[in-house]
Amino acid sequence: MGNPIQTAISPTRAEDYPEWYQQVIKESDLADKSPVRGCMVIKPWGYALWENIMRTLDGMFKQTGVKNAYFPLFIPLSFLEKEAMHVEGFAKECAVVTHHRLEKGADGGLVPAGKLTEPLVVRPTSETIIGDSFSRWISSYRDLPVLINQWANVVRWEMRTRTFLRTSEFLWQEGHTAHAEMKEARERTQLMLDIYARFAEEYLAMPVIKGEKSAAERFPGAVQTLCIEAMMQDRKALQTGTSHFLGQNFAKASGIRFQSAQETEEYAWTTSWGVSTRMIGGVIMSHGDDDGIILPPKIASSHIVLLPIIRKDKDRQSVMDYTDNLAQALREKSYGDRKIDVEIDARDIGGARGWEWIKKGIPLRVEIGPRDIANNSVFVARRDKSPSEKSSITKEQFIAQLNDILDDIQKNLFERALEFRNKHTVQIDSKNEFLDFYSPENPEKPEIHGGFALSHWCGDDQCESTIKEDLKVTVRCIPFDTKTEAGKCIWCGKPSHKRVVFAKAY
Amino acid sequence: MGNPIQTAISPTRAEDYPEWYQQVIKESDLADKSPVRGCMVIKPWGYALWENIMRTLDGMFKQTGVKNAYFPLFIPLSFLEKEAMHVEGFAKECAVVTHHRLEKGADGGLVPAGKLTEPLVVRPTSETIIGDSFSRWISSYRDLPVLINQWANVVRWEMRTRTFLRTSEFLWQEGHTAHAEMKEARERTQLMLDIYARFAEEYLAMPVIKGEKSAAERFPGAVQTLCIEAMMQDRKALQTGTSHFLGQNFAKASGIRFQSAQETEEYAWTTSWGVSTRMIGGVIMSHGDDDGIILPPKIASSHIVLLPIIRKDKDRQSVMDYTDNLAQALREKSYGDRKIDVEIDARDIGGARGWEWIKKGIPLRVEIGPRDIANNSVFVARRDKSPSEKSSITKEQFIAQLNDILDDIQKNLFERALEFRNKHTVQIDSKNEFLDFYSPENPEKPEIHGGFALSHWCGDDQCESTIKEDLKVTVRCIPFDTKTEAGKCIWCGKPSHKRVVFAKAY
Repeated sequence: MGNPIQTAISPTRAEDYPEWYQQVIKESDLADKSPVRGCMVIKPWGYALWENIMRTLDGMFKQTGVKNAYFPLFIPLSFLEKEAMHVEGFAKECAVVTHHRLEKGADGGLVPAGKLTEPLVVRPTSETIIGDSFSRWISSYRDLPVLINQWANVVRWEMRTRTFLRTSEFLWQEGHTAHAEMKEARERTQLMLDIYARFAEEYLAMPVIKGEKSAAERFPGAVQTLCIEAMMQDRKALQTGTSHFLGQNFAKASGIRFQSAQETEEYAWTTSWGVSTRMIGGVIMSHGDDDGIILPPKIASSHIVLLPIIRKDKDRQSVMDYTDNLAQALREKSYGDRKIDVEIDARDIGGARGWEWIKKGIPLRVEIGPRDIANNSVFVARRDKSPSEKSSITKEQFIAQLNDILDDIQKNLFERALEFRNKHTVQIDSKNEFLDFYSPENPEKPEIHGGFALSHWCGDDQCESTIKEDLKVTVRCIPFDTKTEAGKCIWCGKPSHKRVVFAKAY
Repeated sequence: MGNPIQTAISPTRAEDYPEWYQQVIKESDLADKSPVRGCMVIKPWGYALWENIMRTLDGMFKQTGVKNAYFPLFIPLSFLEKEAMHVEGFAKECAVVTHHRLEKGADGGLVPAGKLTEPLVVRPTSETIIGDSFSRWISSYRDLPVLINQWANVVRWEMRTRTFLRTSEFLWQEGHTAHAEMKEARERTQLMLDIYARFAEEYLAMPVIKGEKSAAERFPGAVQTLCIEAMMQDRKALQTGTSHFLGQNFAKASGIRFQSAQETEEYAWTTSWGVSTRMIGGVIMSHGDDDGIILPPKIASSHIVLLPIIRKDKDRQSVMDYTDNLAQALREKSYGDRKIDVEIDARDIGGARGWEWIKKGIPLRVEIGPRDIANNSVFVARRDKSPSEKSSITKEQFIAQLNDILDDIQKNLFERALEFRNKHTVQIDSKNEFLDFYSPENPEKPEIHGGFALSHWCGDDQCESTIKEDLKVTVRCIPFDTKTEAGKCIWCGKPSHKRVVFAKAY
């Protein structure tokens, strides 16, 4: 007991959180670095997670009348320039296609050839190219609303990248809608944010704060940006989804006009909204522990691994038969909208086998040995409990209780994360306390600070940008559930009428 | 009766097949042109078709142990150059990213800036970038086989594009596998082709010929390319899927090495295989008629449209209630692995409404008026029959027989297409007959020729390329079911031991 406890991931979260994150990804087999600057390879274990996220969200979108479509990867430079704020926001980080051929150069190697008359930008987001389609699809109020989503890859040439959180290429969905009435567009903006929040909490087990972004943090070209913000285990915020009310800005830029019921010509009101593979980073940092990731059962790449234990050759047949039968029985069951996924790992590699699955975060590990078979039982370990905590239950009980066990893990993860966030969210009313809250608790771990501060802000850009510069702390959002109350700006002391959420952020 | 029959699509197939194809796409709302050269916009009705294709194929792949993953969009130029044949095949038509930023230029407009040290090619296919990952993932025979698929967009800068058939950007899946043994890799190549063939015939209702490509038509860098070829209604061939045995070519190019069970170091044997949104073009041209597309029920964007007929306001409530109830009853049913999709079109636009759905190719149209309600019946029209052919059956019968009706449409489409192909596939043994077969039947319609010729070919590149130059006819494949028989090359007369499939092709 005097020895330090061995953990599967080194360093631990307490030792070096950013490095822990990279090691967890590596050891869990979620993703890999690639030879292309800032681009990741999503490995099968990580992509299965993304497939579950996609399928669930896609169903939620479709229930609200949204249909999927697909638009070009390339955006002509002149399109991007149509909305001034928008192009300003994306010009600094975009991949530009300038040639459409390769030719032998002077030194014999291939060089770009066939110069394009107009450069093409690899989409960083698709408002302008989709707006062009909308301008052709919409001519009457009868054509509205148009409710479109696309699942796609996008590219933003980030200078400092981190797997899942910030990569040059990432996968996402982007919803784009057009409406005849401002009110309807605003309601759609809110509806999609509510869907994101419900998905984050019910599926990712990640508590989120819903709110509105300050003007400085808005999507380039939007009138209003709504967001959900989650707290990671290093107490930093992760923006996990945004929904934008675009007013008539993009309708004017793209010429999305329609004839109203009153026979006047009007610009449409548009929205856009998106979540991305960044959510996977959020799952890792919300639930992971020093032994690796912990996957919420509802979106887990797989639910259960069966680990047959065969110490003597004579047992092989009976253990494998029992394992295969159990797998078959489990695969006939469903959890939520999805059949139970079962892995069988019969590799003879000793204790490393169990630890691999712990690091991969599979919700349930089930050991099956000759003694279990004799007792008609299984030896079950939950990923949300300590690795050594295992319990023997009869096979029938396990099958019957499976959904309850998975629900309990899902609930437990959410409650833990909520408890953590509550513990590190503080109402702060004095500037000194605020400064102290964002100073390192331990000089050796400069990254560990207080967490979320609920403090008054006067609404002034200047205060916001000074706080950002001095403390690397930003207004994450003006939460919807904030109460109107008299107060003083945490920075300048001027009157304020509501608290906002301050935090350091990814 | 003296008047020509009005068709919904103008021109008809007989009048101008290529233009008919473009009009069908437009009128069916499957896709739209885009402002980006050669890139298409896939509209919701077309994308739903693609979603059904993806879901079905994805399930078939996974049943054989394949897992999905995701690799970077960009390929460093030096990677593409690793395999000499491969880069030769793709250098002439690739989008090249040379800059990662936009900056204000001398005239105030934005210009590309931040030149990359190495240009990046937007993937035309991913053998080289996936090979790089494989080289890191594989070190022992225990790591093999690796069975990976990715659903992705790819770009090939085509000079002459046609929606779905040949576009600069298209959507596809590309499978990539690595094996310890040549035999296993060859079996995988065949297995995936068999899956494509089964999918084409059972789901797309499109009969295909399975075979091997000639050396000239092989995938650049492959040892062997297997393919499925279908006949379109203009008697041209459409290659709808390919599966490549890559030997050790790409393993050597990317350094995919492993230690064998005998502790020797070996190169892996790899395969790749893909199908794309081109399949949608195949569906249009296999089944479409002069009234638009006809969607095979198993992959149709939607199965049924309900068309309430309300001539008097007093009937509105009862007709809509009956319609909604029927929709609900139908949506509880499944066809194949999928719930029945039901559209309700209650627009008051007269006869145009029915014709819109005919042009969109929905398998079943169901009219519901007050008289039908009085009789507890529905008025059903099948898209594979004449537009005027409608039959009244009781609601209960319709619900009970729905799957049989859909199966019958699916079967009917396949049989029609097979009959058409058989009719236009001819064994030809004389050069004159061959020349005649590929000459226009009618000088006013130069595109209509004989069809598929089953003729002997000596195997010589020279004959193959001369036939291609002179007649625009290519060896589509050496079919697997060809018998060994003595014969003479249709072109040069030299001895040949089997017949191949000749055709004009897309």
